[in-house]
Amino acid sequence: MSGELDLIERLRALPLHEGARNLDDDAAVLDIGGETLVLTHDMLVEGVHTAPGQDAADVAWKLVATNLSDLAAKGARPIGVLVGFTRGDDDARFVAGLEEALTHYNVPLLGGDTVSSGKSPRSHGLTAIGRASHVPVPSRGGARSGDAIWVTGTLGAALAGFEAFTAGDRAQAGAYLRPRALIDDGLALAPAVTAMMDVSDGLLLDAWRMAQSSEVSLVLESAAAPIALPEARRDEALRWGDDYQLLFTLPPGTAPPVRATRIGTVEPCDGDGALVVDGVSITSPDGLGYSH
Amino acid sequence: MSGELDLIERLRALPLHEGARNLDDDAAVLDIGGETLVLTHDMLVEGVHTAPGQDAADVAWKLVATNLSDLAAKGARPIGVLVGFTRGDDDARFVAGLEEALTHYNVPLLGGDTVSSGKSPRSHGLTAIGRASHVPVPSRGGARSGDAIWVTGTLGAALAGFEAFTAGDRAQAGAYLRPRALIDDGLALAPAVTAMMDVSDGLLLDAWRMAQSSEVSLVLESAAAPIALPEARRDEALRWGDDYQLLFTLPPGTAPPVRATRIGTVEPCDGDGALVVDGVSITSPDGLGYSH
Repeated sequence: MSGELDLIERLRALPLHEGARNLDDDAAVLDIGGETLVLTHDMLVEGVHTAPGQDAADVAWKLVATNLSDLAAKGARPIGVLVGFTRGDDDARFVAGLEEALTHYNVPLLGGDTVSSGKSPRSHGLTAIGRASHVPVPSRGGARSGDAIWVTGTLGAALAGFEAFTAGDRAQAGAYLRPRALIDDGLALAPAVTAMMDVSDGLLLDAWRMAQSSEVSLVLESAAAPIALPEARRDEALRWGDDYQLLFTLPPGTAPPVRATRIGTVEPCDGDGALVVDGVSITSPDGLGYSH
Repeated sequence: MSGELDLIERLRALPLHEGARNLDDDAAVLDIGGETLVLTHDMLVEGVHTAPGQDAADVAWKLVATNLSDLAAKGARPIGVLVGFTRGDDDARFVAGLEEALTHYNVPLLGGDTVSSGKSPRSHGLTAIGRASHVPVPSRGGARSGDAIWVTGTLGAALAGFEAFTAGDRAQAGAYLRPRALIDDGLALAPAVTAMMDVSDGLLLDAWRMAQSSEVSLVLESAAAPIALPEARRDEALRWGDDYQLLFTLPPGTAPPVRATRIGTVEPCDGDGALVVDGVSITSPDGLGYSH
């Protein structure tokens, strides 16, 4: 068991809010005052989630977009964000990126904290709060046998962007530096899907997680997945993360209300859930994607 | 202008939620349905907000307590927390401390994120969400001329605890290692106060902030403040932070509903707000307390 999974098991033993969904989802769901809120918190650590030399404006953008992507996967409209920011020499760039992202998504700042550490690595956190547009709020755990498996957009674009960035070609690095949260797609999909999540850590790893949460087999045809890399690199495109596309399941015969590609079918399984890729059963999540 | 103040000015220029209270308060206020939520996010950085060698269980406790203290200052009942945790060798101790704190305050975990950096300093963040017990939610900005200024408990206990900890006497270090969030005091005070905040960065600095937000003079008698240190160290007790007592103002003639000590009177001022200590006007917040 990896360190992260071991830790999550320990955290699951804590007093959990029912809206925590047993820490098995991208976001928490909180019923309050007749409304349903969706809350998520993700961190970015310098050098772990960002590349050396990355502009702080891009870091700020990514911090906003990755958290809003979790709201998108719940079909939630953003209400506001709280930012936890570790100061450095590039605060003005960080705030500039924050402004671009908040303006782009029309999300206001609610508050947060700024701290000074004076040392690397710096860490930043962001809490995004949204209002659910559809109840029940989609989860990873609703995929049912017979459902079709779909994904928006293309996979591997962030990897291509990362490679462009490390080669010094910032102009081609947008998919890595400035990921998009698919808020509108999530809103359109929420009433239709049986399960939904964003692809943050690679299609195969995230599909594994959906299968585990739903206690079904996700049977994928890898050739069907739309990729943004040459065919020879298809496998990498399905294992690299950071694309923030939406992976979702629909009942048989339902057409998706957004542009998406069908990549497989949900089948029943014995036990905890399983992932089958091109007819091969995957028995462990190790190496399937990006664990951090 | 310090780096932090400069940064906060930049953040204030971003699109702000009205509940952000112009980033001039300890927490954000969000009206949802018929309820009013209070949200706060604070970070702890290893070596900045914690002492070297501190048990990760104490760090986790402090992360919970300091955020709940912000809810206390708003008269809010905690609903849940989201934790952003950077993993290390002492994850089990961190989770143990989290469990102690969540159980003590009867607050469930809503979710969060765990990341791995592999390097020091590690940072942790926590978002606490509470339900306001009284509307309007107390702010720093409501002190009015003629009000009496009060503080709960004693000041300097955390400094004494810090000194005990660094001397190896963990048994006497509780006030530093395990601060308390005064939730019940905050609930009792919320309907009565004109302004309230928690004393996180030292009485004098926080009183300065209340004066600025309220645009009044806070006129303090330092001898009246209850301290947990020898009389010769009174000044330090009023400038060190981490005590998490509640500083509040009450209309003239109102008795506080909790144990507290009167330490001064609010007077009108010309301009932006002022702090007067023992008859001496303080003209700058520099050196008044703990800025970080």
